[in-house]
Amino acid sequence: MLDLAPLLDEKLDATVKGYPPRAAPLPLSAIGAQRWNLLAGDLPFPQAVIRETALSHNHSWMRDFTAATGVLLAPHGKTTMAPQIFAQQLAAGAWGITVATVQQLDVCVRFGVRRVIMANQLLGAAEVRAVIHLCAAHPDLEFHFLVDSLAQLAAIEAVARQAHLPRKLTALVEVGVPGGRTGCRTGAETLAVATAVAASDAIAPSGLECYEGLQVTGDSTQDNRVVGELMQRVKDAALGCDQAGLFAGEAILLSAGGSAAFDIVARDLPTQLSKPVLTILRSGCYIAHDSGFYERLLAGVRQRSGAAWQARPGLRPALEVWSQVQSRPEPGLAILTMGKRDASFDIEMPIAGQWYRAGRDAAPVAAPSGWRIANMNDQHAYLRIAPDAAAPAVGDLVACGISHPCTTFDKWRALFTVDDAYRVTGAIRTFF
Amino acid sequence: MLDLAPLLDEKLDATVKGYPPRAAPLPLSAIGAQRWNLLAGDLPFPQAVIRETALSHNHSWMRDFTAATGVLLAPHGKTTMAPQIFAQQLAAGAWGITVATVQQLDVCVRFGVRRVIMANQLLGAAEVRAVIHLCAAHPDLEFHFLVDSLAQLAAIEAVARQAHLPRKLTALVEVGVPGGRTGCRTGAETLAVATAVAASDAIAPSGLECYEGLQVTGDSTQDNRVVGELMQRVKDAALGCDQAGLFAGEAILLSAGGSAAFDIVARDLPTQLSKPVLTILRSGCYIAHDSGFYERLLAGVRQRSGAAWQARPGLRPALEVWSQVQSRPEPGLAILTMGKRDASFDIEMPIAGQWYRAGRDAAPVAAPSGWRIANMNDQHAYLRIAPDAAAPAVGDLVACGISHPCTTFDKWRALFTVDDAYRVTGAIRTFF
Repeated sequence: MLDLAPLLDEKLDATVKGYPPRAAPLPLSAIGAQRWNLLAGDLPFPQAVIRETALSHNHSWMRDFTAATGVLLAPHGKTTMAPQIFAQQLAAGAWGITVATVQQLDVCVRFGVRRVIMANQLLGAAEVRAVIHLCAAHPDLEFHFLVDSLAQLAAIEAVARQAHLPRKLTALVEVGVPGGRTGCRTGAETLAVATAVAASDAIAPSGLECYEGLQVTGDSTQDNRVVGELMQRVKDAALGCDQAGLFAGEAILLSAGGSAAFDIVARDLPTQLSKPVLTILRSGCYIAHDSGFYERLLAGVRQRSGAAWQARPGLRPALEVWSQVQSRPEPGLAILTMGKRDASFDIEMPIAGQWYRAGRDAAPVAAPSGWRIANMNDQHAYLRIAPDAAAPAVGDLVACGISHPCTTFDKWRALFTVDDAYRVTGAIRTFF
Repeated sequence: MLDLAPLLDEKLDATVKGYPPRAAPLPLSAIGAQRWNLLAGDLPFPQAVIRETALSHNHSWMRDFTAATGVLLAPHGKTTMAPQIFAQQLAAGAWGITVATVQQLDVCVRFGVRRVIMANQLLGAAEVRAVIHLCAAHPDLEFHFLVDSLAQLAAIEAVARQAHLPRKLTALVEVGVPGGRTGCRTGAETLAVATAVAASDAIAPSGLECYEGLQVTGDSTQDNRVVGELMQRVKDAALGCDQAGLFAGEAILLSAGGSAAFDIVARDLPTQLSKPVLTILRSGCYIAHDSGFYERLLAGVRQRSGAAWQARPGLRPALEVWSQVQSRPEPGLAILTMGKRDASFDIEMPIAGQWYRAGRDAAPVAAPSGWRIANMNDQHAYLRIAPDAAAPAVGDLVACGISHPCTTFDKWRALFTVDDAYRVTGAIRTFF
């Protein structure tokens, strides 16, 4: 159980982007009672909202998927950096939360998360001291970070020698991909790092980690092969470390799994070793899903997962960015009040999904297929309208789906949750 | 004089990215006294810092430039969204502050800015009501927004009719560029919109506006021609409106000027009309400058501005993002603790500028020219090292310049200011 009370007491005010400019400052806990409605002119634009029914559906979907496949989940918290969503994920059965930095770890621990994987190398004097302090202050904190080199190990030990270590830190040795990002490139390197960690006074090896997400293409034949081979490398390395008696804990952690091919990980990573093995996925984007990158990749996940998963509805996009048509300066062009500060643009432009004209529409309608966001500036989007498509007017609202969620959440200090009629039901605070 | 006291009393804590994870929560005003040093391991990474000497130099440079050319400056606040920097800009003689949204306006007014241009269309019921409220609450607030269509005008009037208007709102009619963003495409359209605004019960036309920045190429011959023609269009439209007696105020505002060709605006926009004319630049990026996009464009500004400006030092990059080498997994590759959440990537990747190894270096040294950030993920950067270049080690620090400042500032809730020895001298809060 996380302690969200201090967070729910925290006030938002009109300095926060998206907050109604004339509303009094309100604690998060009071937002839902205001009966604000996005379609009724109560909110400013742009406005990023989380659709509550989609969020709830995605929680259930992933809970069922991990239960069916028998793996654990430590969803990557970097996606939302929202303790309120972390609490929902833990309530839905998540084993813990994954983070990318010590600041993100601090946010987790502060609100009561007690199992955290930092899927990144711990390094830096300030960071190492902070981790030692958190472990001392919270004896019940289980925290695993990544290690992939003797140089990193030596750097941590140098700081640890000057601190009072309440207990050994625990680290997952990272198995990397040649040509990829971090991680040991060979089995021999993995074993050498694990051996050195096992001999350390400061750190004990608690398992192995890898990240397959950067290799995923969306072509299932290739993804099955590439991800399958990587999982085999992790299992081979785990077996070698286990046979050498390097793993210190009561269980051995094996963790992989982004949001693109977690089904292959869940299928291929589980293995038997001399102690209980915890197979832990770290998917984070499932919670908001999206309307582009992950929507395409999830088709592969479902196709590979058999008839039962194909028959069920898939993940649903929960994150929408609403903006207003501020100008129709030329035929074929509408300028929207939404820019690079407000919505992801790193994989592709936002996807125009819905259209709403106050006075004409009882509810949003599907945006014409001939609408396309062609470009964004810092504070503007260029909506191109095909010659045969219906055109929006100044003042109309346009809802865009995004691709991908991580780079939209981080543009908002708070996001409202809405029901299916776009009534505001609450607010989610982020910590980026 | 802005009232920054409430802001300086606001506390930062370790939930804020970049804040030392073990430091107690501290008000902004107390940060400078902590004697933290970026090079001494006191701060976590990544870390975006503002170099105080460069910031101060840029303030002076632009004060001198606008004084020499005789134009006024309302620097675009969207770049930093930092009231502390707004206060410095106003103290250096800025006429007012420019914003892009009503939330940004609210931040300005809250801290005491009383002359604001919103270089964007006002629209939306929540936004219009907020502007009316701000004008009523602050009789000394001079606020000008953009209008470019009769539809927008009608939408504002519909909201204004249901509110108590303390006085007429004031709007600049936007002159646009065919194929460009917002704004009236022709002189006839500009005159028609200005005429309608002049006849409005709710709004009075206070001048004209345009934005030349999207047309600037960096080729001075072309930029002189294109920007010069646009300025002529603005002056022609202003003359037409003036002759028709449409401008209501004691002075007529003519505003243009981003950060790429403000010298051409300062040269070509000033004109004589029947009342005093205020020629107002809106450049925002000069304050932090950068190490890529604007660094290249400023060469054109200086080249066009004559021998005196070529002899003086130009703007200096004030914003640096420091990160740590977390892994050296392969020859030619270093992975840095800095990603798309931390530094701009929308124009080009960050530019590796400095290198520091604790224990070896007394001060940062220039990064080898064979270092290049090739890619970033959400939380990682890929530093490619040419075969003949010296290579960094795990734990080394790398400072990157950025391109452009707007999309780096908005990734940080607070940024430390540092002196030339990278001692922290204070903290700047942003409001995105």
